Amino acid sequence: MQALPGFRDFYPADAAVRNAVVGAWRRVALGYGFEEYDGPMLEPLDLYAKKNAGGEEILGQLYRFEDGGGRAVALRPEMTPTLARMAAAKEKHFRKPMKWFATGSFFRYERQQRGRLREFLQFNCDLLGEAGPAADAEIIALAIDTLRAFSLGAGDFVVRLSHRGAWIAYLESRGITGETASGVLRVADKLERETDESLDAKLAPLTGDRLCAADLRAFVAGTTPAELEPVMRDLAARGLADFVKVDLTIVRGLAYYTGTIFEIFDRAGTFRALAGGGRYDGLVGSLTGTGSPMPAVGFGMGDAVLCEMIASLPHSAKALEDAVQAARARDVYVVIADEAHRPWALGLLQSLRDAGLKSEVSLSPTKVGKQFQAAEQAGCTHAVVVGGEWPMVRLKTLATRVEEEISHDALAARLKNQQV
Amino acid sequence: MQALPGFRDFYPADAAVRNAVVGAWRRVALGYGFEEYDGPMLEPLDLYAKKNAGGEEILGQLYRFEDGGGRAVALRPEMTPTLARMAAAKEKHFRKPMKWFATGSFFRYERQQRGRLREFLQFNCDLLGEAGPAADAEIIALAIDTLRAFSLGAGDFVVRLSHRGAWIAYLESRGITGETASGVLRVADKLERETDESLDAKLAPLTGDRLCAADLRAFVAGTTPAELEPVMRDLAARGLADFVKVDLTIVRGLAYYTGTIFEIFDRAGTFRALAGGGRYDGLVGSLTGTGSPMPAVGFGMGDAVLCEMIASLPHSAKALEDAVQAARARDVYVVIADEAHRPWALGLLQSLRDAGLKSEVSLSPTKVGKQFQAAEQAGCTHAVVVGGEWPMVRLKTLATRVEEEISHDALAARLKNQQV
Repeated sequence: MQALPGFRDFYPADAAVRNAVVGAWRRVALGYGFEEYDGPMLEPLDLYAKKNAGGEEILGQLYRFEDGGGRAVALRPEMTPTLARMAAAKEKHFRKPMKWFATGSFFRYERQQRGRLREFLQFNCDLLGEAGPAADAEIIALAIDTLRAFSLGAGDFVVRLSHRGAWIAYLESRGITGETASGVLRVADKLERETDESLDAKLAPLTGDRLCAADLRAFVAGTTPAELEPVMRDLAARGLADFVKVDLTIVRGLAYYTGTIFEIFDRAGTFRALAGGGRYDGLVGSLTGTGSPMPAVGFGMGDAVLCEMIASLPHSAKALEDAVQAARARDVYVVIADEAHRPWALGLLQSLRDAGLKSEVSLSPTKVGKQFQAAEQAGCTHAVVVGGEWPMVRLKTLATRVEEEISHDALAARLKNQQV
Repeated sequence: MQALPGFRDFYPADAAVRNAVVGAWRRVALGYGFEEYDGPMLEPLDLYAKKNAGGEEILGQLYRFEDGGGRAVALRPEMTPTLARMAAAKEKHFRKPMKWFATGSFFRYERQQRGRLREFLQFNCDLLGEAGPAADAEIIALAIDTLRAFSLGAGDFVVRLSHRGAWIAYLESRGITGETASGVLRVADKLERETDESLDAKLAPLTGDRLCAADLRAFVAGTTPAELEPVMRDLAARGLADFVKVDLTIVRGLAYYTGTIFEIFDRAGTFRALAGGGRYDGLVGSLTGTGSPMPAVGFGMGDAVLCEMIASLPHSAKALEDAVQAARARDVYVVIADEAHRPWALGLLQSLRDAGLKSEVSLSPTKVGKQFQAAEQAGCTHAVVVGGEWPMVRLKTLATRVEEEISHDALAARLKNQQV
């Protein structure tokens, strides 16, 4: 019996990589003063059915069903609707800005292909209650520093910065608004991937002869929105200018964006987007019922494309592997020279674990040589031999083979000192 | 719009508690040399439908549905079937014993009542490939040390130790075997909660006049299984004897247990079980298809009862709250005396974050007094004022109000040193 297609078993080596990735996400977000939150894996279907909170594509990919009480429910396909629901319910209880992040599992029933999973991890960072460009820059800097935490540099990836407001204003100048504008934006989102013929065939029914693909390309090539200038200046002051370029080709599919938008790609153009996000000032307010606005900006980053990219770059892969190895290392193996002394060994083992040292012992009678072998295989830095010299024990540093005698009750303190 | 009943929103304060609990689980398991693993949240329904892998009660509580491809699937209600599936598929690839733990979400559609959630967290530790009593003791010691990590002591909780083999042997001595024995064990599981009359009414159809509740009580009161003696000796050598007592009242509901079994309760008897587990030597082997046996022992511990118990004991609640506060503290607030200097402040901010310091800045023009107030509210230990003295900045330790001047490019190193 196997896992369902698109779902992953995390054996210890895989779980260690996953934990290193999630650990880096957490560390960077905490460094930015963001606080972790989370919501349920299962939500009312209505949360995603609301037009603003998702978009047509996601609705078709939902794992949805009726629960035992006849409620229409869905496994969460993304975090933003849950965040908006939670923020709308209690925003009065929190000082602004609210700087929140989440790491967790999400579910989409997608066609099976490389890098597409049906259960995947995503890192979500959102900053609520701050409308200015400094908040946009803070979110983009956080996304950049997250990738830098995986030893990815300005030569490896680029943040492509765009502005939904500039797009809306341009379309208005062509007399295109409302639902038609949303439709054009969904077509414009494909500027990079489709030919002019294909795009024109989609634009014509929406806009008649008011707009063609060539117009969109001219707009993209010739525009640097003034709204992005303070964002760029802020990022430059942080020393992060090399990681960002203005690129109006970025449109973002979802309807709820209102201002700055961005996507992050590898420079080589090999992979799909590593992350994407932007400003969505209307969404949370639309859920409070009071209609009071709540400025918001955020991004999401999945684990699948990120790990593919890390694996493709030796310096980044090595850094991740080193972090994984360090996390999996253990401190001490308690070697039992003679089974008669097992009670002493168990007491010593307990004192080492009480001191916070990662410690192992053989759980059945085993030859001393085999115990040393197990110590090496388990990644222990030290072995300590309990034998007839008790209360003295023999401490061996496995890398150097250096041995010393030490009293069993001084061992934990001795090894703790060495750790610092 | 709210979360579904039985599902939790983790606002930052709640998520911080959750992370402290999960963090302690992880720390103790890693200290025992256990490795983390995980599986999918969604599994084939068949995994739970197999009789051995669950039990009737859990089947009725499954969140089950058909996915987009017509597969019968279920949200995982417990970890053991996934562990058994994963271990059975690849056990040849791993050195024995395999010492694995998992922390994650599980789902049961249960009637709503206090302490019962429909999505809950569970800590699962399992040790595969070792048949002896030292493995039983290692698992029980790990469960004890997990509770000790929450400042719970031998006066607060007790491990009630029993043995499925002793029960089976006793029933055999009364001529009761197979399905009938399983039925009797399910009745015996209620010895503490039901009257003799109620129990006898359930036993009679199973055993006729061969067995009554009084027989079961006499067996429980008069038996200390010899199989448990080496387990008790091992735990005594670790200094953990005070945490354990033999108590045959513990039967465990699930069919798959074969040897040592245990449940952990608060001494006061206020709560449901904090944790439960035991030896299940047949389950993994039954899934490999090869029929080769795989000894296994493990336990599960949920977050709901644990957190109720911690909250009920001031010394434990205080320890958890201290851990939460320490985790939520931040290092530095960069105070901008004059907006003209924001670029300097942003550069300094970036250098602090690059050094791993949790750092904040105001994202809009704010009076200096308000920035200091925000620093205190955010739990920053330090504030640094960027102003006209640049490249010098003023560092203020918020607890003592002590101020000093320091060059901006020496600040990160200065604060890092203080951290250690």
